[in-house]
Amino acid sequence: MTTIAVDAMGGDHAPKPEVEGAIRAARNLGVRVILVGREDLVRRELEQHEHDSLAIEVRHASEHITMNDSAARSVRSKRDSSLRVSSRLVREGCAQGFVSAGNTGAVMATAKMVQGVVLGVDRPALSGVFPTVTGLPVVLVDVGANVDCSPRMLAQFAVMGEIYSHMILHRDNPRVGLLSIGEEEHKGNEMTRAATPLLKSLPINFIGNVEGRDIYSGKVDVVVCDGFIGNVALKVSEGLVDMIKNTLQESLESTITGKLGYVLAKPAFTDFKRRLDYSEYGGAPLLGVRGGCIICHGRSNANAIKNAIRVASEFSGGKVNQRIEDEFRRWMTEKL
Amino acid sequence: MTTIAVDAMGGDHAPKPEVEGAIRAARNLGVRVILVGREDLVRRELEQHEHDSLAIEVRHASEHITMNDSAARSVRSKRDSSLRVSSRLVREGCAQGFVSAGNTGAVMATAKMVQGVVLGVDRPALSGVFPTVTGLPVVLVDVGANVDCSPRMLAQFAVMGEIYSHMILHRDNPRVGLLSIGEEEHKGNEMTRAATPLLKSLPINFIGNVEGRDIYSGKVDVVVCDGFIGNVALKVSEGLVDMIKNTLQESLESTITGKLGYVLAKPAFTDFKRRLDYSEYGGAPLLGVRGGCIICHGRSNANAIKNAIRVASEFSGGKVNQRIEDEFRRWMTEKL
Repeated sequence: MTTIAVDAMGGDHAPKPEVEGAIRAARNLGVRVILVGREDLVRRELEQHEHDSLAIEVRHASEHITMNDSAARSVRSKRDSSLRVSSRLVREGCAQGFVSAGNTGAVMATAKMVQGVVLGVDRPALSGVFPTVTGLPVVLVDVGANVDCSPRMLAQFAVMGEIYSHMILHRDNPRVGLLSIGEEEHKGNEMTRAATPLLKSLPINFIGNVEGRDIYSGKVDVVVCDGFIGNVALKVSEGLVDMIKNTLQESLESTITGKLGYVLAKPAFTDFKRRLDYSEYGGAPLLGVRGGCIICHGRSNANAIKNAIRVASEFSGGKVNQRIEDEFRRWMTEKL
Repeated sequence: MTTIAVDAMGGDHAPKPEVEGAIRAARNLGVRVILVGREDLVRRELEQHEHDSLAIEVRHASEHITMNDSAARSVRSKRDSSLRVSSRLVREGCAQGFVSAGNTGAVMATAKMVQGVVLGVDRPALSGVFPTVTGLPVVLVDVGANVDCSPRMLAQFAVMGEIYSHMILHRDNPRVGLLSIGEEEHKGNEMTRAATPLLKSLPINFIGNVEGRDIYSGKVDVVVCDGFIGNVALKVSEGLVDMIKNTLQESLESTITGKLGYVLAKPAFTDFKRRLDYSEYGGAPLLGVRGGCIICHGRSNANAIKNAIRVASEFSGGKVNQRIEDEFRRWMTEKL
């Protein structure tokens, strides 16, 4: 049985969604979960739910890292943080991966330092999964772990994203595109122009430049970019979805027929929201660290945590990191 | 009376939306319009509409630039293109600005070369206007004219965007933010970290770093970024809006109550679409060229063209470029 550690103190509303998500995962996914955090708080939350028959354990950690802590400093100074203990459980083989909705910078720094990096990977990359028009998800790598990337790093992101798309999202021969500002090869900046020949030389299905709108168009399965760009793309999308939901609601509430229409179409709106809901996709895997590490949004609900646990479990089952290591050994030593 | 030249051959469906937009502008905005393009085609379209009493003129241009033409080459080789003739009318003082829905690269290159650049501006910048949660628009500079920007260029974008927001969008003391991946000053890439001290030294209301989601949150009036980033943000937004409209429609059409709700709430949906509609904002002004130049989306409809003519007219009336020149003389010679 796969065991996943959950940083129970990470999210904005911890430990409630973490505990609920763990219960749902243990109940429905056949996964063993270790909840890591302040034992009194975690147990109190756990007591709110029926959980006796479930494979859930609590591991005490006396500290936790807040959003205000500096990533680098907190990793070093808070040695008994719930985050660090979670990562240590993976390193020691007690868990096959861990999930955290905490400070993204701190999670990445901890996973890199404690679990270490897959052989051949220069820098782990944070991947995000987005819905598309076709209903099939697209992977964006990197969404914020690395800025000022070298072309070599982008090539590594392409390989890791391709393996992730294939092994976890089950895409055959995933189409990999480079995020730029025009489809033609010469359109872009210094970095994209330098990365193109390298990407072409890889044994992946590289389709060339794609544009921002293609993230949602379904014409590409893996979009590669510098983490600064990917983070902007991710957060622009979040902001726009919030704005659109607000605008739609205001428009619907401004007239009686609008309100009535909304009531009648409620299941359609629920379906619509679910299809846009990030929590269905289960967080962002940090590709290239040993053992799994899935980073969730700070405001993750129980469903998002459950799905992140599912992805962490699939990650270990699919042996993604082993595959990355094998591929890197095979390709990268020659090419990069 | 302000005169605006319109490149009648620019857009994907030229000259239909251009001619209709010109008619609407001449009728409702009190603007004189010169339609520039193949005289036979433009007149044939014009004859479809009642236009005798309107201040509309046609200026023949024998060539036009397509989306497949290289920007740099077409500007030089097609000397009688509708685009180039439009820009020349501005240089010669026959029009105070021009509007084109053509090849963005070619429009920018032509305006720069033919009309020239405002004194003190290193590189003109393309600005985009976006809706926000609050209903007040936000300006993003640059959305694709310049990639691999220097910190000095970002500082110039900030000044030009601030003037645009104040003079055309009538914002008092506009809040200017630098697009980055976290609010803290140290969060960002090499470029944002280098630009921050320069932006702080300007006599504008600089509020520091903003994130992608803040474009839509209403907490900032002018967002400054490299053109590569801005273009990605713009196109990610376009792609996401398309995806959301599709998803919503599919969800509504999948059940009978959904369909009925949609019928009842139709005015609300129309209002919703209008509030998200880029065509209301009238294209993207190229800030920093002499005389106005407004670039529209290739798929612009008549409403978008009309609004672009309105913005071009306000641009000349508001003397935006003169103000940019004055401010640059006053500030930039010391600071940059």
